[in-house]
Amino acid sequence: MSPWDELPVRDELRGKSPYGAPQLDVPVRLNTNENPYPLPEPLVERIAERVREAARDLNRYPDRDVVELRTQLAKYLTDTSGHQVGLANVWAANGSNEVIQQLLQTFGGPGRTAIGFEPSYSMHALISRGTGTGWISGPRNEDFTIDVEAAVQAIASRKPDVVFITTPNNPTGNAVPRETVLALYEAAQAAKPSMVVVDEAYIEFSHGDSLLPLIEGRPNLVVSRTMSKAFGAAGLRLGYLAAHPAVVDAVQLVRLPYHLSAVTQATALAALEHTDTLLKYVEQLKSERDRLVDELRAAGYEVVESDANFVQFGRFEDSHIAWQKILDQGVLVRDNGIPGWLRVSAGTPDENDAFLDAVRELKKEQSA
Amino acid sequence: MSPWDELPVRDELRGKSPYGAPQLDVPVRLNTNENPYPLPEPLVERIAERVREAARDLNRYPDRDVVELRTQLAKYLTDTSGHQVGLANVWAANGSNEVIQQLLQTFGGPGRTAIGFEPSYSMHALISRGTGTGWISGPRNEDFTIDVEAAVQAIASRKPDVVFITTPNNPTGNAVPRETVLALYEAAQAAKPSMVVVDEAYIEFSHGDSLLPLIEGRPNLVVSRTMSKAFGAAGLRLGYLAAHPAVVDAVQLVRLPYHLSAVTQATALAALEHTDTLLKYVEQLKSERDRLVDELRAAGYEVVESDANFVQFGRFEDSHIAWQKILDQGVLVRDNGIPGWLRVSAGTPDENDAFLDAVRELKKEQSA
Repeated sequence: MSPWDELPVRDELRGKSPYGAPQLDVPVRLNTNENPYPLPEPLVERIAERVREAARDLNRYPDRDVVELRTQLAKYLTDTSGHQVGLANVWAANGSNEVIQQLLQTFGGPGRTAIGFEPSYSMHALISRGTGTGWISGPRNEDFTIDVEAAVQAIASRKPDVVFITTPNNPTGNAVPRETVLALYEAAQAAKPSMVVVDEAYIEFSHGDSLLPLIEGRPNLVVSRTMSKAFGAAGLRLGYLAAHPAVVDAVQLVRLPYHLSAVTQATALAALEHTDTLLKYVEQLKSERDRLVDELRAAGYEVVESDANFVQFGRFEDSHIAWQKILDQGVLVRDNGIPGWLRVSAGTPDENDAFLDAVRELKKEQSA
Repeated sequence: MSPWDELPVRDELRGKSPYGAPQLDVPVRLNTNENPYPLPEPLVERIAERVREAARDLNRYPDRDVVELRTQLAKYLTDTSGHQVGLANVWAANGSNEVIQQLLQTFGGPGRTAIGFEPSYSMHALISRGTGTGWISGPRNEDFTIDVEAAVQAIASRKPDVVFITTPNNPTGNAVPRETVLALYEAAQAAKPSMVVVDEAYIEFSHGDSLLPLIEGRPNLVVSRTMSKAFGAAGLRLGYLAAHPAVVDAVQLVRLPYHLSAVTQATALAALEHTDTLLKYVEQLKSERDRLVDELRAAGYEVVESDANFVQFGRFEDSHIAWQKILDQGVLVRDNGIPGWLRVSAGTPDENDAFLDAVRELKKEQSA
């Protein structure tokens, strides 16, 4: 018996593995939906400057209520969605994972359940487990769209306390239509009422609009966001949400006090000063994403319509073997465990070329 | 009914207030045990430098396993405790609050309980509630030492899954003798076995030694630490633990992936490079703390023996009124809700003089 076996860990954790994609050292890494563009040098300098300033006060606790950063996030949301959002609507935490954890601690937890429509962002299920929230795996169509009728029925019969809707969906890339979100919200209110969390981590890459304006008049609707993707700041760990002010008040009861460090707040504020530049990279990535879709199809692959900075493609008899063959050519993509499919993040034009060469090669091999 | 009342929050959260001391703008703030010394300018520059470097890679996720930082923390623990600690023994998170939350998610949670001996660090109880862990308030003697016999009995009869021992204790300031910790550990192993978490947030200010060497041969013992106090970095939010490697493995199952940002890791690494300088401030604060104890006693106050960077003093007929009177003189101390007592953090010599003037004034008033 190893010491691990003797440790009094919770039963449901035994035999489990930690979440996380392999971090391999290969030339082309297109596996974690990172933004391939490093921050522009003026922004790097601005971060150093703002952090230097914050460091002079580092012996003091950070602003517990994160007022300046929430104000600037609200301004960004207002500017990009056309919907007026204020400080009181916004909350921020260490990555959207912590936002989701706080939401589950407040509205889920022991004796309660959450539903997601799978395959989707797998952390929803994992954080549910971590917070003692029962997890319900909801249905999806063959083409990875949400089966509205089946979803509404699942909500009506299982009466979950929290409903997750990821749009654009990860790992499949497709956006969820506004009408679907509205139908699921209505079903959730009729069933319980329960909280509906719309996870818009990739929304800036979408052909369509954010569903943010839906929070108006819907106190049980939360939109979650991140600076990891569109702001090219995965290393910063800054997630946030927009909702009715009552939701923001409620998560204060479970947030760890001073959860967001002064250096994180300073860095995020610097990045928000450079929003315009960063959103230009987003435009570049969107056109590269569209190119990936087109070229993959031209090469004979099946591709799910993508509104994100990644593309799900297939089909493979054995996606793990295909993953390995692409890796052998120096390109790391993601095997999300969905039989027949793999996911590739949109990289720089050169990285995407390397990827496309690899998958064309693979196709040749398969046809040979 | 306000929208708050209609929100489907968990029942046990209703009517509760968020944790946190009032952040008031007064000349002398001695209420949150912050280190009064700003980081030295060369360290501020080093932080800016390391963060600039990290920002150049900010589009990538941070090192999920926090290897470099854990290695340096292990070195610091080895150097200061004389006990050999390695990377595999150490884990780090956003403040010791997140360390404690991860421990409770792993070893506590729904259907399980944790015990602490109160008054003690109130976040232990609050994070227990936030993780669905039942809370048991254990006993303490009148003089705020742990009543060993009663504590052992409480552990034997209530069989908690997690036992918290805070040494030096917050808010009372007294250290827990090694023999007491050993007795409670033995009792906890006999009862369940359960995890014992020794919270050493203030250990660098103690007259005595860290209990870190006790982790040897005791896989169910965890020592938690922070850079907020001795490293003068409350704004950084960097907590860590040392334990058997199996404990570090176990918390991987509940930690949010990439929980610790690249800027946090870079800043903490910079601070660790300046350990020697920062520990000199600790020596200064220890002598100021001792002066506070002496002068408070000379002024006729009762004082709990302190091994921390703060002092609990009394007694007051109404400690809230006393708190207000001290505040009226421009000095903010902490009312922890312990009848008859207040807590003051050791500040700079000038800040402490201002505090001592205020409490001498108060004494005069009371005798008049």
